Amino acid sequence: MAAPVIGVFDSGFGGLTVLRELQKVMPAANYLYFGDTAHLPYGAKSVRTVAKYAIASAHFLESRGIEMLVVACNTATALALEDIRAAVKVPVVGVIEPGAQRAAEISKSRKAAVIATEATVSSHAYQRALHKFGLESVEKACPLFVPLVEEGWVEHPVTEQVAHIYMDEIFRDGARGADVLVLGCTHYPLIRSLLRRVVPAQVEIVDSAESTAAKVVNQLGSARGQGPAGTLQCFTTDSVEKFCRLGSKFLGHSIENAELVDIEK
Amino acid sequence: MAAPVIGVFDSGFGGLTVLRELQKVMPAANYLYFGDTAHLPYGAKSVRTVAKYAIASAHFLESRGIEMLVVACNTATALALEDIRAAVKVPVVGVIEPGAQRAAEISKSRKAAVIATEATVSSHAYQRALHKFGLESVEKACPLFVPLVEEGWVEHPVTEQVAHIYMDEIFRDGARGADVLVLGCTHYPLIRSLLRRVVPAQVEIVDSAESTAAKVVNQLGSARGQGPAGTLQCFTTDSVEKFCRLGSKFLGHSIENAELVDIEK
Repeated sequence: MAAPVIGVFDSGFGGLTVLRELQKVMPAANYLYFGDTAHLPYGAKSVRTVAKYAIASAHFLESRGIEMLVVACNTATALALEDIRAAVKVPVVGVIEPGAQRAAEISKSRKAAVIATEATVSSHAYQRALHKFGLESVEKACPLFVPLVEEGWVEHPVTEQVAHIYMDEIFRDGARGADVLVLGCTHYPLIRSLLRRVVPAQVEIVDSAESTAAKVVNQLGSARGQGPAGTLQCFTTDSVEKFCRLGSKFLGHSIENAELVDIEK
Repeated sequence: MAAPVIGVFDSGFGGLTVLRELQKVMPAANYLYFGDTAHLPYGAKSVRTVAKYAIASAHFLESRGIEMLVVACNTATALALEDIRAAVKVPVVGVIEPGAQRAAEISKSRKAAVIATEATVSSHAYQRALHKFGLESVEKACPLFVPLVEEGWVEHPVTEQVAHIYMDEIFRDGARGADVLVLGCTHYPLIRSLLRRVVPAQVEIVDSAESTAAKVVNQLGSARGQGPAGTLQCFTTDSVEKFCRLGSKFLGHSIENAELVDIEK
């Protein structure tokens, strides 16, 4: 059976943490990664705007022959997953449900804390998904984590101080009793070690990137992704040089090239 | 003589600090403010992308009958001022030259430090403008200041710590001997008091917003802007609610309404 062609979409670089997990579990698949960097970040934009860009990006990937689309962006999943599903013919996997499901498997207290961007939190998409699996939840926007990660301060005292402020706010208030913390933004896996030091010891950290990769394997069948390493083609809507440079940090290995695409035509 | 109609353009909210200065010196003028919030921030985007959005926004304001356009965005001025001038018929004033000119009037050591976004620094537009006025300069990107201001942490210990790190880097290294610091981003006036505490005492801070307002008065004639307060109409490309809420902080008084505009049609 032929190796699958999987489209992975994000507003920028964060989705590359999902691609990294996918490449671990399905190395032979061929990947098309689309980073809509001309419009990032989605985290502070409205539903209408995010849906418009996400659908245009999804159409682009569909035109390139993908058989499955991974929306590797929490904000786009939270705000526009159903719109994207309605706009394309291929199956679409978002990052929120897999993360919520994993949290539900782990939690004994049946209470989760979720950290994400402003737009994802405002949508309450995690709260709804967790509720479906029987978990109570408290959500908190952490708008400084994305710029701190993009500044490269992933092990920096300022980031640790900001993490202490955010985590104190969430665990002191509503999330008392939560025993799982869901990383509801694809940038956050880069500060997972730092967060591990700051978050209360009894709280387990769930990374949506891992859970999403596991769901894709489940849907496509793990056998199809095994074999010699497949190809990776990257597309970006802004600077190719910046995409390759910053993107390599998120993917964990170097990105040689990306193709510049205009989705506003 | 009739009160002038002045268009003010920015990628988001920062340009409202320029509008605030304009309203101080020309209260009777009628203002049209355009915040291209669907595409913010411009600070990390490429020349091509910034020019495209800036020109579309300028065309929109021109179609509404402005007689002068103020590009109240350092990144758009740095990357696209000449493109914008070529695309519209009305006179266009940017924020960089007025700031550089003011720095040149003040500096005795003939050396300036400039802080701005990544894109503005990469363009070296301030370095060129300051050089024209006979000043040497050192530029530094401070990408965390915009998200810190937007988080509302304008008098926060974390912002002060970040400011110490950035200012140590610039004044310890290349900017030794500089006696003026140019705020090359329209968000930075909101942390001017905090910066005043962190920046060496002999260094004077220049706010481009003030210098730009002075230049507009100079070009239009101060008499035309005097009289009973003029009108303000706001346009935004993303959430109206967010524009009014966040924008009010930058403008210093409340914004009652804004009109949603799509410049990608």
